[in-house]
Amino acid sequence: MTATTAKPRMRAGGRAARRSLRSTRDVTMLPGLTNRLPFCEVMEGAQVAQIDAASMDILENVGVVFRDSVALADWRRAGAKVVGERVYLDRGLVRGLIASIPSEITYHARNPANTVALGGRQAVFVPMTGAPYLRDLDDRRRNPTLADLAMFHKLSHMSPALHSTAHHIVEPYDHPISQRHLRITYSSMKHSDKMFMGMTTSPRNAEDVMEMCALLFGAEFLEHHAVTTGNCNGNSPLVWDETMLGAMRAFCRRNQPVLCSPFVLGGANTPASVPATVAQLNAEALSALAYTQVIRKGCPAIYGHYLSTVSMKSGAPMAGTPEISLMNFMIGQMARFYGVPWRTSSALGGAKTFDAQAGYESATTLSAVLHSGANYIWHSAGWNEAGMHCSVAKFVVDAEQCAMAYRMAEGPKWSDFDAALAAVADVGPGGHYLGHPHTQENFQTAYFMPELFDNNSIEQWVADGSKEITARALEHARKLLAEYQEPRLDLARNEALLDYIARREREIPAADALNQEY
Amino acid sequence: MTATTAKPRMRAGGRAARRSLRSTRDVTMLPGLTNRLPFCEVMEGAQVAQIDAASMDILENVGVVFRDSVALADWRRAGAKVVGERVYLDRGLVRGLIASIPSEITYHARNPANTVALGGRQAVFVPMTGAPYLRDLDDRRRNPTLADLAMFHKLSHMSPALHSTAHHIVEPYDHPISQRHLRITYSSMKHSDKMFMGMTTSPRNAEDVMEMCALLFGAEFLEHHAVTTGNCNGNSPLVWDETMLGAMRAFCRRNQPVLCSPFVLGGANTPASVPATVAQLNAEALSALAYTQVIRKGCPAIYGHYLSTVSMKSGAPMAGTPEISLMNFMIGQMARFYGVPWRTSSALGGAKTFDAQAGYESATTLSAVLHSGANYIWHSAGWNEAGMHCSVAKFVVDAEQCAMAYRMAEGPKWSDFDAALAAVADVGPGGHYLGHPHTQENFQTAYFMPELFDNNSIEQWVADGSKEITARALEHARKLLAEYQEPRLDLARNEALLDYIARREREIPAADALNQEY
Repeated sequence: MTATTAKPRMRAGGRAARRSLRSTRDVTMLPGLTNRLPFCEVMEGAQVAQIDAASMDILENVGVVFRDSVALADWRRAGAKVVGERVYLDRGLVRGLIASIPSEITYHARNPANTVALGGRQAVFVPMTGAPYLRDLDDRRRNPTLADLAMFHKLSHMSPALHSTAHHIVEPYDHPISQRHLRITYSSMKHSDKMFMGMTTSPRNAEDVMEMCALLFGAEFLEHHAVTTGNCNGNSPLVWDETMLGAMRAFCRRNQPVLCSPFVLGGANTPASVPATVAQLNAEALSALAYTQVIRKGCPAIYGHYLSTVSMKSGAPMAGTPEISLMNFMIGQMARFYGVPWRTSSALGGAKTFDAQAGYESATTLSAVLHSGANYIWHSAGWNEAGMHCSVAKFVVDAEQCAMAYRMAEGPKWSDFDAALAAVADVGPGGHYLGHPHTQENFQTAYFMPELFDNNSIEQWVADGSKEITARALEHARKLLAEYQEPRLDLARNEALLDYIARREREIPAADALNQEY
Repeated sequence: MTATTAKPRMRAGGRAARRSLRSTRDVTMLPGLTNRLPFCEVMEGAQVAQIDAASMDILENVGVVFRDSVALADWRRAGAKVVGERVYLDRGLVRGLIASIPSEITYHARNPANTVALGGRQAVFVPMTGAPYLRDLDDRRRNPTLADLAMFHKLSHMSPALHSTAHHIVEPYDHPISQRHLRITYSSMKHSDKMFMGMTTSPRNAEDVMEMCALLFGAEFLEHHAVTTGNCNGNSPLVWDETMLGAMRAFCRRNQPVLCSPFVLGGANTPASVPATVAQLNAEALSALAYTQVIRKGCPAIYGHYLSTVSMKSGAPMAGTPEISLMNFMIGQMARFYGVPWRTSSALGGAKTFDAQAGYESATTLSAVLHSGANYIWHSAGWNEAGMHCSVAKFVVDAEQCAMAYRMAEGPKWSDFDAALAAVADVGPGGHYLGHPHTQENFQTAYFMPELFDNNSIEQWVADGSKEITARALEHARKLLAEYQEPRLDLARNEALLDYIARREREIPAADALNQEY
């Protein structure tokens, strides 16, 4: 910073250089994806009915624990049988409640051009969140800071196929945990004009997020438009806790959607059976979805889940396994059966570095997610080490993978079929197409060219420094950050947000000490 | 070797250790895959008809060059219009010819337990072939030898989800090229009792392969049963050459199937359009498929292709791109429209090392292949660097990926659904399943546990030596090779094969010098 100030000419030169780079890179966000693939439906109608019936039996006869006195009182009023903390939900009651969940949601971004639709065939890619570590621009694994979080929000903004900045992509350890949600939310809002997620770490924190959304969008706007998403994890099997339920109420009362996400560790907190795991997960999701409508009838809500199977050796969650793909296919069918938009996770994996394991796991999951017809595709970029770290290198590669998946899901383009066939006749047997006018006009749009895959000869690759994908991706990330331009917040709203944060940080004791690694 | 001979006790100890390892590893080949997934059909019926009509127009009006006097004479006799080397194929003639191609093939292995079906929903995984380099057990990139080839044949044998040993997985540079096909074929036959592929490097070489198959299976058996596969690449656009056509005749006359494989570099030798590329490829495949039936009516044949799109920067082939997935989906539809089994390629990629790029590319391709319903899934293990090298590490990981894909394509298992649901009621909200009898009985079959993915904590991973997947996979390959047991050939047939090779090597001049790297 000092060097830049001291040498204004270099700075100007840098700017000019950046401008020229900018002119070649289009970071305009892709519209929300319309997934035109035929969905991979591994269940016949009768099997969908079997899962539905099994889930309803679970809700009626096994029941679901709501560890929250407000929710229990709500359920009593709604007509459910409540015994202690256990709520028994009649299938008629459940069906009646979920019927008022909108099948489509329009998510508003502060830049209206970045507003997206969700539900049916409409889908969005959202980066990962929640990592307590990052692998940074030097591939060093360490605890993250607010600056690291801002970096990921900037990279999200620069990635055309990411439709959201999410929220705490990484946990900013350099700020007190009790106040962290304010800074995280502000970082999401400030560094990008895409949609974002809202913290649900406590009911009060969720209220803060709602207040900040009201400051950004206007309280009245919020009342009628979805502008953020909260995630509420279940404690499988069949338990919802006070923190999640309180946060859910904060969101639903303001008409903001939450992801109702059972947290499946297949074989540990669900049966050793794919269809029975789906039945349990479905019961759990339905119980929370139904509760959103008890809180506020007609409020948008999203059928969620986190899916893993566990290792017999260590009990650790696994990703990219065949059963996770199958469960995604099945859950997609269930969500469509109920007419509710649904969330899944992409790009998951357990690799400790950005090695080939990470690539296999992520691509397998992404593919299953696309074929399953998921709407809210969370954890789409950066996830590694079972979510313990977010990798900068993987983040930018995953973001490009989303762009590739996006292209695939659009399906083949037929618009120039006749002109392209005319080229076949022109070129004839033994000819070549590179010089043909149709090729020159259409090559760029016809075939996706991944920027982060190296397809050169080995001789060229060696001449370029023998760089594996991690090194190339980190260079790419640095370039993106150098080119980043902040989409400025409206001045008055920015002031209001900063005032709010300052006031709340005075009110909230920074009770917890900073992580001593900083 | 000297050390082992000098210390017989150590040798015996080694054997005992190996026996104990053997008892824990089941290398029994999985039956041919029955792919129960609903196929991803991105074209409506009218679009399939559009491709068909476009291909037939190409065959009738643009024509296909057959650079081979025998084929041209054959086509004249069959009633095609032949002008110079260009053959114009009437759609009625083409449809009439391909009608006699069997829709299913039974592939016989020398071990009848390893015989597999192909066509419809029946599929097989076949390892890569043709690499001029390998990355060896030390991850060193070098030219391969016959011993390296034998190693890959052994690894194929040890991989339950690989249904074939293919043929020249790597090119054995330590043997004269003119005689190489004999040693390659023998290596495939000797080191495994699975099916294998036959060399098509010249018509005479193909005849040698047929003779060796006759020695292994009996000439009369060969006449009525498929025991090997030849690959015949087209020179896209719209050219078939003398070498390939001569080899094709050698196979078809003995009733052995060939893969009729247009070689697509999308944008370079096909139009810059996915549907028009499929139309050209389809015309090319149909012209060769039709010719197989001119050679011998009723002979089995396989709709083939090699698919890549080319980089605008370098002209290099790319893999794992969205258009390759889309073309796979579309070609699957075309092959099913004609009722002909079809071949595709899996696990392709352009990475120079076994890094994350290789993982993304391979998994993306494998997934597309599964959803497209391919029957003959070639290049399923080892492929890297655009086919320039076969990686030992990647080979064993890809082989496990095939096993995972196999499991996914089997679909969910419903057989114990009721018992698993009973476990949900037993365990109840907040409980856990690991100790439940249903879990203990079903865990192993319910959830696939990848052996080559590390899902331990980072602390455990560091304690284990911080090994990335390449290092772990190479250790695994060494273990497999240590456990390998040769499925002995019948003594008389083995003698006959060795006699044949010896005679032919006396007849064939070793004209080309050995590669000077050896």
